[in-house]
Amino acid sequence: MKRIGMLTSGGDCQALNAAMRGVVKCLYTSGEQVEIFGFLSGYKGLIKSDFKMLTGDDFSGILTKGGTILGSSRVPFKTIDEPDEEGNNKVECMKHTYHKLNLDCLVILGGNGTHKTANRLRTEGLNVITLPKTIDNDLWGTDMTFGFQSAVDIATDVIDCIHTTADSHGRVFIVEVMGHKAGWLTLNAGMASGADIILIPEIPYSIDCIIEAIRRREKRGSKFTILAVAEGAISKEDAKLSKKEYKKKLEKMKHPSVSYEVADAIAEKTGLEVRVTVPGHMQRGGSPCPYDRVFASRLGAEAGKLILKGEYGFMVGYKDREIVRVPLEDVAGKLKLVSPDATIIKEAKMLGISFGDE
Amino acid sequence: MKRIGMLTSGGDCQALNAAMRGVVKCLYTSGEQVEIFGFLSGYKGLIKSDFKMLTGDDFSGILTKGGTILGSSRVPFKTIDEPDEEGNNKVECMKHTYHKLNLDCLVILGGNGTHKTANRLRTEGLNVITLPKTIDNDLWGTDMTFGFQSAVDIATDVIDCIHTTADSHGRVFIVEVMGHKAGWLTLNAGMASGADIILIPEIPYSIDCIIEAIRRREKRGSKFTILAVAEGAISKEDAKLSKKEYKKKLEKMKHPSVSYEVADAIAEKTGLEVRVTVPGHMQRGGSPCPYDRVFASRLGAEAGKLILKGEYGFMVGYKDREIVRVPLEDVAGKLKLVSPDATIIKEAKMLGISFGDE
Amino acid sequence: MKRIGMLTSGGDCQALNAAMRGVVKCLYTSGEQVEIFGFLSGYKGLIKSDFKMLTGDDFSGILTKGGTILGSSRVPFKTIDEPDEEGNNKVECMKHTYHKLNLDCLVILGGNGTHKTANRLRTEGLNVITLPKTIDNDLWGTDMTFGFQSAVDIATDVIDCIHTTADSHGRVFIVEVMGHKAGWLTLNAGMASGADIILIPEIPYSIDCIIEAIRRREKRGSKFTILAVAEGAISKEDAKLSKKEYKKKLEKMKHPSVSYEVADAIAEKTGLEVRVTVPGHMQRGGSPCPYDRVFASRLGAEAGKLILKGEYGFMVGYKDREIVRVPLEDVAGKLKLVSPDATIIKEAKMLGISFGDE
Amino acid sequence: MKRIGMLTSGGDCQALNAAMRGVVKCLYTSGEQVEIFGFLSGYKGLIKSDFKMLTGDDFSGILTKGGTILGSSRVPFKTIDEPDEEGNNKVECMKHTYHKLNLDCLVILGGNGTHKTANRLRTEGLNVITLPKTIDNDLWGTDMTFGFQSAVDIATDVIDCIHTTADSHGRVFIVEVMGHKAGWLTLNAGMASGADIILIPEIPYSIDCIIEAIRRREKRGSKFTILAVAEGAISKEDAKLSKKEYKKKLEKMKHPSVSYEVADAIAEKTGLEVRVTVPGHMQRGGSPCPYDRVFASRLGAEAGKLILKGEYGFMVGYKDREIVRVPLEDVAGKLKLVSPDATIIKEAKMLGISFGDE
Repeated sequence: MKRIGMLTSGGDCQALNAAMRGVVKCLYTSGEQVEIFGFLSGYKGLIKSDFKMLTGDDFSGILTKGGTILGSSRVPFKTIDEPDEEGNNKVECMKHTYHKLNLDCLVILGGNGTHKTANRLRTEGLNVITLPKTIDNDLWGTDMTFGFQSAVDIATDVIDCIHTTADSHGRVFIVEVMGHKAGWLTLNAGMASGADIILIPEIPYSIDCIIEAIRRREKRGSKFTILAVAEGAISKEDAKLSKKEYKKKLEKMKHPSVSYEVADAIAEKTGLEVRVTVPGHMQRGGSPCPYDRVFASRLGAEAGKLILKGEYGFMVGYKDREIVRVPLEDVAGKLKLVSPDATIIKEAKMLGISFGDE
Repeated sequence: MKRIGMLTSGGDCQALNAAMRGVVKCLYTSGEQVEIFGFLSGYKGLIKSDFKMLTGDDFSGILTKGGTILGSSRVPFKTIDEPDEEGNNKVECMKHTYHKLNLDCLVILGGNGTHKTANRLRTEGLNVITLPKTIDNDLWGTDMTFGFQSAVDIATDVIDCIHTTADSHGRVFIVEVMGHKAGWLTLNAGMASGADIILIPEIPYSIDCIIEAIRRREKRGSKFTILAVAEGAISKEDAKLSKKEYKKKLEKMKHPSVSYEVADAIAEKTGLEVRVTVPGHMQRGGSPCPYDRVFASRLGAEAGKLILKGEYGFMVGYKDREIVRVPLEDVAGKLKLVSPDATIIKEAKMLGISFGDE
Repeated sequence: MKRIGMLTSGGDCQALNAAMRGVVKCLYTSGEQVEIFGFLSGYKGLIKSDFKMLTGDDFSGILTKGGTILGSSRVPFKTIDEPDEEGNNKVECMKHTYHKLNLDCLVILGGNGTHKTANRLRTEGLNVITLPKTIDNDLWGTDMTFGFQSAVDIATDVIDCIHTTADSHGRVFIVEVMGHKAGWLTLNAGMASGADIILIPEIPYSIDCIIEAIRRREKRGSKFTILAVAEGAISKEDAKLSKKEYKKKLEKMKHPSVSYEVADAIAEKTGLEVRVTVPGHMQRGGSPCPYDRVFASRLGAEAGKLILKGEYGFMVGYKDREIVRVPLEDVAGKLKLVSPDATIIKEAKMLGISFGDE
Repeated sequence: MKRIGMLTSGGDCQALNAAMRGVVKCLYTSGEQVEIFGFLSGYKGLIKSDFKMLTGDDFSGILTKGGTILGSSRVPFKTIDEPDEEGNNKVECMKHTYHKLNLDCLVILGGNGTHKTANRLRTEGLNVITLPKTIDNDLWGTDMTFGFQSAVDIATDVIDCIHTTADSHGRVFIVEVMGHKAGWLTLNAGMASGADIILIPEIPYSIDCIIEAIRRREKRGSKFTILAVAEGAISKEDAKLSKKEYKKKLEKMKHPSVSYEVADAIAEKTGLEVRVTVPGHMQRGGSPCPYDRVFASRLGAEAGKLILKGEYGFMVGYKDREIVRVPLEDVAGKLKLVSPDATIIKEAKMLGISFGDE
């Protein structure tokens, strides 16, 4: 008999349900008796002991369903040692819930912030297994996170749509793509949709290089240019600022995001019509793509196997095409970013894509 | 032998190519000899005599292709009697091109503004046939315009994606839908995606009614609310302003669109987290949906028939499930808006949808 | 207080859930007290009094869900007066269930067969309201049925996929499209996807005309030809047979469907490579398209209104862009087929599409 | 100055155009002068010196286009040393064309058969670079082939659609998935769509095990079962036959494929209603998915790099998340199949999926 707590934390993404279904299918298929406590709204549910008991039926038919049947919330790691709104110590509350329910382990699905908290709980003596969820694909220790490919599909679809209208009107179009501080999503959606210029946080841009790239296209007869711009894109000058200085600058910005700044600069210097599209939260919604469904199911199954063996303290990840386990202490607090020297960047440049850096 | 000029004007949309292919397929199938002059970038091409000769091959394989193979541009009707940048009289230039090329007629695809100009050309003695293109579905004289259903599909898809994330996080989400001054697109995408509140220009809203609707949902246990907001949505107070006063107010607005104003008001009065998504130009891009492909092809075929018969001065439209011809002078300058008393509005209200008006 | 029985009968299709949700949302929104009895697996559930009580929650989130939450089955009208497997009179059983549960009315969703039974129940004194469900769009009394546009979308998508491979390999491709004895689905999917030849039951074909159409394409330089063939397509010779004779002939056929016969005949007479694709039940599955979601919701809302008013004995249909009610006795037993003289057929021919008849 | 011949051979698939665009974009971006000879209809074009000169424009906008702009054909390797229909030696013709046009190299896109011929041309002294194209993912020497993920997406979509109708009617549904002698496509589409039973060539099935799996589902309350069956699936008894014996048996089979045999056997032994869907060639058609577009573009870019360096005799493949080059002689004639002991098979079994083998 196993008593499993489960929670999804941070921004939701596609295939959270598929991953949880994987864990549960594996446990049920093994014949082991299990009781599943689903904590509601992420760590909040663990802090407040807010949960519902789940059975196999709850996981039936959710393979293809977006979002998370448990709900999610952001409880920032930075404030984990601050008391919650009722004045209680959050870590102690979580430990209390865990022990009160006599859990064998917690299965925690989340991204970077989530993993810091999960590792903290591990150091506090709780049994924890995590699954790497994020459309940003920026988790250290795994080649891939679920949600990523689904988000690539959506962002690509957006740029595909923009392509026909850009072509018809001969405009410059900017599509702002999510991805936090990592360029994976923008890079892949940009390459998939034939974007001409791709701006990612890892390769600071200069407006002059961007304009040159547009001019080169014009010379070759192209009436339009499409830019895929990561929400975290940064200019060469801004990249020299300290974190604090940059944050201040961002706050003073006229526009809600860097994309609009880039748009203004292009319009001003070239006189071209520039339009910005921000698909936003759409990128983390909807049914997971087949790739993510298979991938999340496999991760879930391996998490189930670890539970059955009683081996805790791991993130289940993906390395060189195999599902692997990675010690939580190695994962927590590290980011996986695009290297400006990565082969894929070189290949993108060979394809004629400009990163606005040269 | 027929010499046909063809142009697409205004914002592009899906199925422009399908419609042009329909015209051309009909002419070729009839066995009539035809020469097709494709004017580039809308009326601009007609003014400057900028065109390319097109053959059947140019129309092969474009049934499913978004955008327009001719390019488009906005040449506002308001300025039609002002000289162009080279100081020439635009109307005279267009007439000159028409007569110089010895055209039998012009086939013009466009929306409201385009129809005003097309009708002007008709009064100047040119043979004109038009096709009703717009994602806004606001053209008078036709039950349907092509592009509309494709845009409904995209906007619905966006709200579907937002649904899963709204559900997971328990937030209020606003999706801003295109449609200019007409609510058709927002109404249909909102109903198709199960939006809880729909704001359209034809039914001015009050923030208090919106908040009441959110509160009613909370009472019934719903953690989230989704609003489909037309880009032209207007509050009850603003609806009382003169056009001029309202325009001024819009210019002074902190945010680029009404959606953000609504978001701020909700957040302020309820303390709820509110997020805005603006899919923007995406809604007019991509491959036309099957409905639009059939519809635009039928319109094109009937336009071809009119050309073969030499009957000019009409928009080819759709009435009571039949393709019809409508005199251009009846169409030009009129808008088709959603009536607040329309059956579909009553039905939407019966389904529990709030329009923020009561 | 209203006590409503609800059932879905016949082959399932998209938007059944959307329609039921519409009825229930309307009833709940009105403030009326309602009890909803969901009969399982179509009329079977009514016969055997096999049902579950449903609440608003059961209808939440099903707007976009394919299939039917109640299950369905085919209970052929022909055998309605034969006893069921337990020897009971089916009609009496249904009446018994109805009266035992003290129902105010039955809401029945189905196609042609379903409507015959529904009308029979009406003549037996039960209060019945029906909703027109079928991907075939062959129900008399309504311009449109829900499921139809969704099936058009899927069949079009199939032919779109086939298009690229046909083009690459220079083959003849046949896609067999559903639709029973009506050509609506094939006609629309064929026009939407640019099929070159469309065979529908209402226009008997001759192989010679088909081959001539292929030859005409070859002469114009086309290496491939795509045929959209209705599952009920029939040759000119076979159309002269009596129903009985034709049934016999079909049974003796080597292949499971007419498409393969057409394929064999083309291959034999031309030496061309011919491939057949049969998407089959796929066409009635998956999430309803936005058009169907809006349409089914509206129908459901109007059904709800009739229930609130206590007006029974109607199918809720669609005429000239308005939701209407049609007396059940007028609907039952009649088919709505494509007229070979319909404008849309003429338009398709103007577009160069061959129907294999001339 | 480089003179490049290019051809696509074998069954077409998604992203062929994307890959060719990648090669050409890389060459043009490098500044090298290039002349591109596109051979039509695969090796046929090379044999008959049937080609067209291509420029950058021909590759513009084809990233998202299915099929191949060059056309394809199957010229079986087995008959490579037999004279063609005009009595000419095929290999000599190909060499002749190559030398006559003074080519620097051939870029050949294809699957298993294609690679055998490509390697033969290499041994005959021609410079050859190949790209791994196949929806079957069965090419040795590369972890992935382009076309595969797009086909997974389509096959998954088909099973998703079938899911709703299976659920509504409580039937057994079989979806026959492509893949030739490899189970990759069926395995991934089956896992992605939540198929209950997956039959692949590498794991011979027994009907009794399949029926047991259906019975287990029934016991747990599931009314329906979905089988994803590879076109090359084989029973345990048949797997014992010699290749020749099995071929004979297949020819005598009543049905066109194994799926129907499985369906008959299930129906007979259980009395359940069983339906078969065969999406067929649809699986290799349509626009490539974003994954394949990025992947094929990267492969193309690396092929371009090899050409620029003058390094020939390689297939450009994918190993451990990096693009690599693999000597052609290592690739030709080898298949990459699913190992029955692979981790992914174990994971699938942990998820409760039956492979009909135990």
